[in-house]
Amino acid sequence: MRLTGVLHGVGLGPGAPDLITLRAARLIEGAAVVAYPALAGGPSFARAIASDLIPAGAREIVMDVPMTVARGPAQAAYDRGAAEIAAELEAGRDVVCLCEGDPFFYGSFMYLFARLSPRFRVEVVPGVTSLTACAVRAGRPLVARNEALVVLPGPLADEALEARIGAAEAVVIMKVGRHLPRLRALLDRLGLMDRAVYVERASLPEELVLPLSEAPEVAPYFSMILVTKGADPWP
Amino acid sequence: MRLTGVLHGVGLGPGAPDLITLRAARLIEGAAVVAYPALAGGPSFARAIASDLIPAGAREIVMDVPMTVARGPAQAAYDRGAAEIAAELEAGRDVVCLCEGDPFFYGSFMYLFARLSPRFRVEVVPGVTSLTACAVRAGRPLVARNEALVVLPGPLADEALEARIGAAEAVVIMKVGRHLPRLRALLDRLGLMDRAVYVERASLPEELVLPLSEAPEVAPYFSMILVTKGADPWP
Repeated sequence: MRLTGVLHGVGLGPGAPDLITLRAARLIEGAAVVAYPALAGGPSFARAIASDLIPAGAREIVMDVPMTVARGPAQAAYDRGAAEIAAELEAGRDVVCLCEGDPFFYGSFMYLFARLSPRFRVEVVPGVTSLTACAVRAGRPLVARNEALVVLPGPLADEALEARIGAAEAVVIMKVGRHLPRLRALLDRLGLMDRAVYVERASLPEELVLPLSEAPEVAPYFSMILVTKGADPWP
Repeated sequence: MRLTGVLHGVGLGPGAPDLITLRAARLIEGAAVVAYPALAGGPSFARAIASDLIPAGAREIVMDVPMTVARGPAQAAYDRGAAEIAAELEAGRDVVCLCEGDPFFYGSFMYLFARLSPRFRVEVVPGVTSLTACAVRAGRPLVARNEALVVLPGPLADEALEARIGAAEAVVIMKVGRHLPRLRALLDRLGLMDRAVYVERASLPEELVLPLSEAPEVAPYFSMILVTKGADPWP
């Protein structure tokens, strides 16, 4: 009887290659098989972060994920990726799946985890999230002492956002992208513009940090708004 | 004219030494001066995480922080620590301050940042937070797709907690410690016990992961409750 391999879901952090953890780096450097998502027909952000660590001879399983509003095409891509990964695991080989940020924090790794964890051993390595990477770039502590934090996806409707923004000292809005003009109008209406910072591609060479009032009209998917409403946190 | 040094606030992650980032490891290994908090008269968790990386000859600035309810004694400890660090920076030496988790996520580094960032260059290295480390140990994605996340400090009063718990698919309660019995009663009353996981010292050898209903009576400060209320996230 042959032992099956282990699937490692490895968080890579927000984008700077040296924000990878020692554990993740060791796993990637020793990998015989790596897997990662890519924008269908385009580049893979995950692979780019880890590129210096991937061994030359490793097999690479690329999951070409279409960014469509309908979920069917993306799920079919994960079906195919899971089948390829399962074949490796069944052959006794470990697979290292590269995940932007943290696999369990808005990560697409959940789709592979759902498909494969019932049948195979899955180990997840947490990563630095864009939450704190953006706080660093904004130059202010995200939460302190007994402050509450709310993390909200930008695609939520205004009413859902407004109800939740009121309940915390710190608010992070993720996946801003094309929702930027609407989110800016909402925060302006709530009187929070002067506490809001826009961060795009935190930790990467092309990162952008601006007061929200000066943010560009067009935001990439990997952009975020931080609002710290608390009283001045300095003692 | 002599250049002043740079203060590096370095996140160490949740506790496992190999969850330190490559950037943090490089800074610590090259440090001439390290600084870290310790429980007054006791051990330093931060130093323990990084101990294998600290150079033998490094100067160590220990901030003995009393864990009192009154804030005065702790703030006096940070005053003294900041003065010691400032002397090194003024002498042109960089200082690497070791921070459990992430410096800007409920981190005591904010007290040094407040005192020193107006006068010196401060660079912060984000770290893996206990949020996602605990989700890994609980074996479930923390948030997915358009779910909202609320992070709440356990010491908040029941009414404040209850109002905020209702507004998100995922809830993390930090700093559980002596508040555990009260928090358990609250979550039971809200009908969330079967979705609640207790995690203590995530990623350390002595970590503990249990359904909240089976959690011990006495919890350490570094403990957490995760509640994922969302519908089954599997596609």
